[in-house]
Amino acid sequence: MKKREFLKYCSLLAGAMISGKSIAAIAEPVKTITPMKRKSTTMKLRFIPYELKLKHVFTLATSSRTTTPVVLTEIEYDGKKGFGEASMPPYLGESYDTATKFLSQVNLEQFKDPFLIEDIVAYLDGIQPGNYAAKASVDIALHDLVGKLIGKPWFRLWGLDPGKTPFTSFTIGIDTPEVVRQKVAEAEPYKILKVKLGLGNDREMIETIRSVSDKPICVDVNQGWKDRNYALEMANWLKENNVAFLEQPMPKTMIDDIAWLTENSPIPVVADEALQTIDDLLPMKGVYSAINIKLMKCGGMNAAYKMATLAREMGMKVMIGCMTETSCAISAAAQLSPLAHWADLDGNLLISNDCYEGVTVIDGRITLNERPGIGITEKIKMFRD
Amino acid sequence: MKKREFLKYCSLLAGAMISGKSIAAIAEPVKTITPMKRKSTTMKLRFIPYELKLKHVFTLATSSRTTTPVVLTEIEYDGKKGFGEASMPPYLGESYDTATKFLSQVNLEQFKDPFLIEDIVAYLDGIQPGNYAAKASVDIALHDLVGKLIGKPWFRLWGLDPGKTPFTSFTIGIDTPEVVRQKVAEAEPYKILKVKLGLGNDREMIETIRSVSDKPICVDVNQGWKDRNYALEMANWLKENNVAFLEQPMPKTMIDDIAWLTENSPIPVVADEALQTIDDLLPMKGVYSAINIKLMKCGGMNAAYKMATLAREMGMKVMIGCMTETSCAISAAAQLSPLAHWADLDGNLLISNDCYEGVTVIDGRITLNERPGIGITEKIKMFRD
Repeated sequence: MKKREFLKYCSLLAGAMISGKSIAAIAEPVKTITPMKRKSTTMKLRFIPYELKLKHVFTLATSSRTTTPVVLTEIEYDGKKGFGEASMPPYLGESYDTATKFLSQVNLEQFKDPFLIEDIVAYLDGIQPGNYAAKASVDIALHDLVGKLIGKPWFRLWGLDPGKTPFTSFTIGIDTPEVVRQKVAEAEPYKILKVKLGLGNDREMIETIRSVSDKPICVDVNQGWKDRNYALEMANWLKENNVAFLEQPMPKTMIDDIAWLTENSPIPVVADEALQTIDDLLPMKGVYSAINIKLMKCGGMNAAYKMATLAREMGMKVMIGCMTETSCAISAAAQLSPLAHWADLDGNLLISNDCYEGVTVIDGRITLNERPGIGITEKIKMFRD
Repeated sequence: MKKREFLKYCSLLAGAMISGKSIAAIAEPVKTITPMKRKSTTMKLRFIPYELKLKHVFTLATSSRTTTPVVLTEIEYDGKKGFGEASMPPYLGESYDTATKFLSQVNLEQFKDPFLIEDIVAYLDGIQPGNYAAKASVDIALHDLVGKLIGKPWFRLWGLDPGKTPFTSFTIGIDTPEVVRQKVAEAEPYKILKVKLGLGNDREMIETIRSVSDKPICVDVNQGWKDRNYALEMANWLKENNVAFLEQPMPKTMIDDIAWLTENSPIPVVADEALQTIDDLLPMKGVYSAINIKLMKCGGMNAAYKMATLAREMGMKVMIGCMTETSCAISAAAQLSPLAHWADLDGNLLISNDCYEGVTVIDGRITLNERPGIGITEKIKMFRD
């Protein structure tokens, strides 16, 4: 218990490099004379807190902020390193504290090899309920590692066509008309704009964007509307304004109202807050017409792939979304994107201190690369050798 | 059209080696002087009919036979070869004729590489409805090829634990008490016996087996019972006789009766004939408690993996079954078996002319190997270089 508390303290020191299993590394010098790398044949998990700096103040229906806390992870095995990330926007209930506490409990050394993904994911799920971002940070690092051991990116291992990635939307936050116009100009390379509504200035936001751009828009209300008649009236008005779909228009608890809206809306209604993990998926049928899958909600790539596949079999459309994240988690999500009808993978584009390079957006479209694993390289070395 | 007819004729000559795209190979000598293999950077599909010889007459509720027609496939790409198989027991409606006709239409050269599994499977589905065994023969060869290109077996690529394979059952066909006893003795290495019922001697079959063995039994009625009260009475009696589950007790069209049986039965009720492809899966919820997935029913490994994953998410149990098949299709199905609660993968053990070596059964349990792809080697060379 004492050891765990000390670990927690260490992990909160910005930039400190710690091991989930041993604190010995912290006392070691950064450089050693031995040029040979010691190859570990057990999996070693390390993690480190990192604060993402947002280019713009980020305003949702319920909060606004200028930073996002993330925890970066690394799993080393047999001379290869896989990278992962937990992004923890405060409204989702995870934090440096909870993630560090969770990751300190993870013992990957008990698994013979990283290929046992199903067992490892089941083990993570069993440690503690919730903590989906923390779980995703291990799941992503594990997938990155396995892809590197195999020498293939995950979209290849899933048999997906890199030519079938969707356009990604670019989020225009709620702001003054002047700032909104400036952001729309900034979003020039993107083919679809995403707008957060639900703060009372719904029509004004859309009209401001429409005064400078006729690009398709997708709308995320983040549960902001409380009246189904207003929601349907808006859905009809949004359709006239070339809005492609409507995400989480009302509180997730208003199931009957949402099902009624979905039945009557001229544009698809997408579940976001209503859907956390794969266990929530089956009841979505008939209530929403599409789901928004996010690695940080569902626990990682393993669950996200299953959710996308299952939702498609259920006849629902699939959106792949994100939090504010580095190119690590964004590139991980992008591996799935050929399975998605829409992508909202702009989280890395909204920050100024991305420490990874990964998938890119070319002509508004997610563009995968052939790097193994999740397809990233380090821009800034976050974990020492 | 003339070319296709000629191709069809050629493919029906036992032992003839033909290409789906070109008949030139048939005129070439079997051995050439050039020791260098030409590497093809397009996918070349070849296929050949083969007749499996059964060790025992195989009796179902509706038919009996001593052979099973299969078509063996090979896809060559970049110096690697993947093997596949279509098994076509006559009651399922496919034949040498239909499979050859289907495979003659398959043009894999249009795909840039074999990793585009989702696109290729969608293309196969689009050629013609049905023909699931023929589709599976391409899907399996494709998976074998991709696994070989990567250098990993599929259970690894799916993140599955080879330590979690189930026991496989060994089928005891309907026969005289004397022959049944002899077969039970033959099944000595197996921990679970499978019995086909539904021919009027149900209790006699079970009692005959119970007179020589107390191993758990699983029962397949192949839609043989027509009365739900009899079915429930039998289910209770079978439970007392250590029967683990009851497969397709009544005709698949008797949905309400089967749902009633499932609700009242003390042992799980498994869908077999009721479930062909992944499209049939969602309506199974509440009707059956488990599904029997067979590669030849659903079109191959891609669909089977998704069905197993989806069924587990639906809270159903999963059985992985087979037709009479060589070790090729059996080993392909076995890759999935760590996802299954029960396996019935004895198809290769019931034939006397298996041309492949693959997964084995050790102490009654499916035992995977680390060979890449589907884990097989050729015992008899069926396709010349």
